[in-house]
Amino acid sequence: MPVNLQPPKPEQLFPVPGLELGVAMAGVRKANRKDLLLMRLAPGSSVAGVFTQNRFCAAPVILARKHLSANSSPLALVINTGNANAGTGDDGLARAHEVCAAVAKTVGCSPEEVLPFSTGVIMEPLPTERIVGGLSAATADLRRDNWSSAAEAIMTTDTVAKAASRKIVIDGKQVTVTGIAKGAGMIHPDMATMLGFVATDAAVPAPFLQALLKEVADDSFNSITVDGDTSTNDSFMLIATGASGVKIADRSSTGFAAFEGAVRAVSIELAQAIIRDGEGATKFITVRVEGGRTREECRKVAFAISHSPLVKTAFFASDPNLGRILAAIGYAGIADLDTSKVELYLGDVLVASRGGRAASYREEEGNAVMKQAEITVRVVLNRGAESATLWTCDFSFDYVKINAEYRT
Amino acid sequence: MPVNLQPPKPEQLFPVPGLELGVAMAGVRKANRKDLLLMRLAPGSSVAGVFTQNRFCAAPVILARKHLSANSSPLALVINTGNANAGTGDDGLARAHEVCAAVAKTVGCSPEEVLPFSTGVIMEPLPTERIVGGLSAATADLRRDNWSSAAEAIMTTDTVAKAASRKIVIDGKQVTVTGIAKGAGMIHPDMATMLGFVATDAAVPAPFLQALLKEVADDSFNSITVDGDTSTNDSFMLIATGASGVKIADRSSTGFAAFEGAVRAVSIELAQAIIRDGEGATKFITVRVEGGRTREECRKVAFAISHSPLVKTAFFASDPNLGRILAAIGYAGIADLDTSKVELYLGDVLVASRGGRAASYREEEGNAVMKQAEITVRVVLNRGAESATLWTCDFSFDYVKINAEYRT
Repeated sequence: MPVNLQPPKPEQLFPVPGLELGVAMAGVRKANRKDLLLMRLAPGSSVAGVFTQNRFCAAPVILARKHLSANSSPLALVINTGNANAGTGDDGLARAHEVCAAVAKTVGCSPEEVLPFSTGVIMEPLPTERIVGGLSAATADLRRDNWSSAAEAIMTTDTVAKAASRKIVIDGKQVTVTGIAKGAGMIHPDMATMLGFVATDAAVPAPFLQALLKEVADDSFNSITVDGDTSTNDSFMLIATGASGVKIADRSSTGFAAFEGAVRAVSIELAQAIIRDGEGATKFITVRVEGGRTREECRKVAFAISHSPLVKTAFFASDPNLGRILAAIGYAGIADLDTSKVELYLGDVLVASRGGRAASYREEEGNAVMKQAEITVRVVLNRGAESATLWTCDFSFDYVKINAEYRT
Repeated sequence: MPVNLQPPKPEQLFPVPGLELGVAMAGVRKANRKDLLLMRLAPGSSVAGVFTQNRFCAAPVILARKHLSANSSPLALVINTGNANAGTGDDGLARAHEVCAAVAKTVGCSPEEVLPFSTGVIMEPLPTERIVGGLSAATADLRRDNWSSAAEAIMTTDTVAKAASRKIVIDGKQVTVTGIAKGAGMIHPDMATMLGFVATDAAVPAPFLQALLKEVADDSFNSITVDGDTSTNDSFMLIATGASGVKIADRSSTGFAAFEGAVRAVSIELAQAIIRDGEGATKFITVRVEGGRTREECRKVAFAISHSPLVKTAFFASDPNLGRILAAIGYAGIADLDTSKVELYLGDVLVASRGGRAASYREEEGNAVMKQAEITVRVVLNRGAESATLWTCDFSFDYVKINAEYRT
């Protein structure tokens, strides 16, 4: 029951010259399901990536990071669902290698020019033979206008495929930014593997692409409660093929603002789509914290609210139990917070101030906001000029159902 | 559906000379429900307390802390359920004062000699008049052998009353330790108000009683995922009436070890009872982390496992999805953790080692452990000699149901 999220329309996903996508049903875990995606890049493309910080990071993450640090111009990406190849030790690493070698053979490059990605069940051996077996079908399927199918191929518990696309014109030339993502938008970020792949045909040198990626990641995939820092497989990749002939070398390049805006818009749309399709989600919640001394403390408060199962179940119940939000603000870790200065808004309604319920607040107003499918919680700390925005979802019966039955 | 938890038998809750308990149905939130508890202490009793660290701490917490710091020999404690008087600002403080004044009048002491406690819905005005109105019935009910009724009076979403009791003999004299607690054992600690009251008739000077309380709290109420540091109302009080004539002045006092053991045993039994009655709990889970460099890093890992909704839903499903536990270990925050050295046991079964599934592991063995109502997860970090143990519960449909419908 995704919140205001439709499957992407294939005609609205603009091809990115220099990049082809091929999909196959490899039967990694289940039959008759798209579960293998191959991306072939034009030689000379730049690729940037951010990966999970989890100490138990998956074998493909170890390998993708290694290949990318050795060579920022890989020629292929391979993504399988059904099995995350995480918690699989040395054997997992060997299997990820094997997949890269097979892709290299198919594409005609070295294994080090292939970046592998996996998502699905963890601690089970990757069925390498099925993935390798599916490669010829994926290769035969390679084409530019295949984003819609690619978005489907990376889904796990997602109920809707996630893709976004923008076109801009720079110096009279058309530049495209198109991306896909998968992720289940869980309450707590542990294993909600989040994968994001955004590609453009602008030419962007790898170091600058990496800097841009980090900034954009902070405001998109790192601003949802599926936290890229903690799952074993999370990866967000930005690919620049250069095929448009438009070069964005640094912030002073002509069209930089438009380009950066398009990349940001696609990334935020994808990140929000993950929340809209959060496991069991019935509400899309924006948590905005203003008036903090630092952005970091604003994020702390926003994450405390966004992670609280009590707050999230109250949203599910459309119950303006706003005290639960106050409690979360109170334990967010700002030691010298003056609670008498904190203001809490639900939508436009001031619900708390001076350490308690606002004098003007009437519960009917809170009820009216809580019944909406999209809700903004705004906290004003009144101690500084910084702010932060996160997106999260509510917490329903279906969350438990989906996660209790995931492997069955 | 509490896990192996029976209501206490009144005859097994030994009276503590020097302490009387009186219960009433004050109609704070619902009619015909025990919701008011008065404890009257013999003059000269020592009281120690630890309170929530939440910045939005409740009015009664502010007042109890203040009264206790001014005078460690209070004469009465008053506890109401149904309304937490939290997030209520100055008005809440005034109402808590009013309750203390009324109790003082009834008991015959000053308002500063009364410690107030509240638990229940937050951000709603405390119905002072109902509490004050119930005091005469509570006073009329005051007696030593009233622990069972007292345990019922402090319940909120608890399904079973929680009490524990021990008798020891020191120097030929009998010393009693009896306690009650309430709490709902939530996943994340936010608003799961936890109240614990343990009393003894030993004579213990207040400063030493406070030191002892802090130690015991760390190994009991602070070792369950209802974390005393974060709710708005959490309080754990230790009362020593001295009526037994046995003095425990410091660690070298005769009988200290036996006394400390009894206080610890009662506190741990109460803390575990909170988990056994965790909201929606179907499993009681012990998380033990060994071989850490510091106790703190062991607790970090144990809390990461205990707080993970994914781990908890897997326990609910009796699914040995152990990779979710590995993932939690991986993001617990030990930056230099060597995952290849980590061993993970489910019960006695080694399930993971060398960064992946143990070669000897067979899923049937994991399944057999997961079907039990009491499960021990043991993590060996193999990097030091410290350890820590936490207790937690699984995460079920009923958790969501209870918390989504709490106010309705």
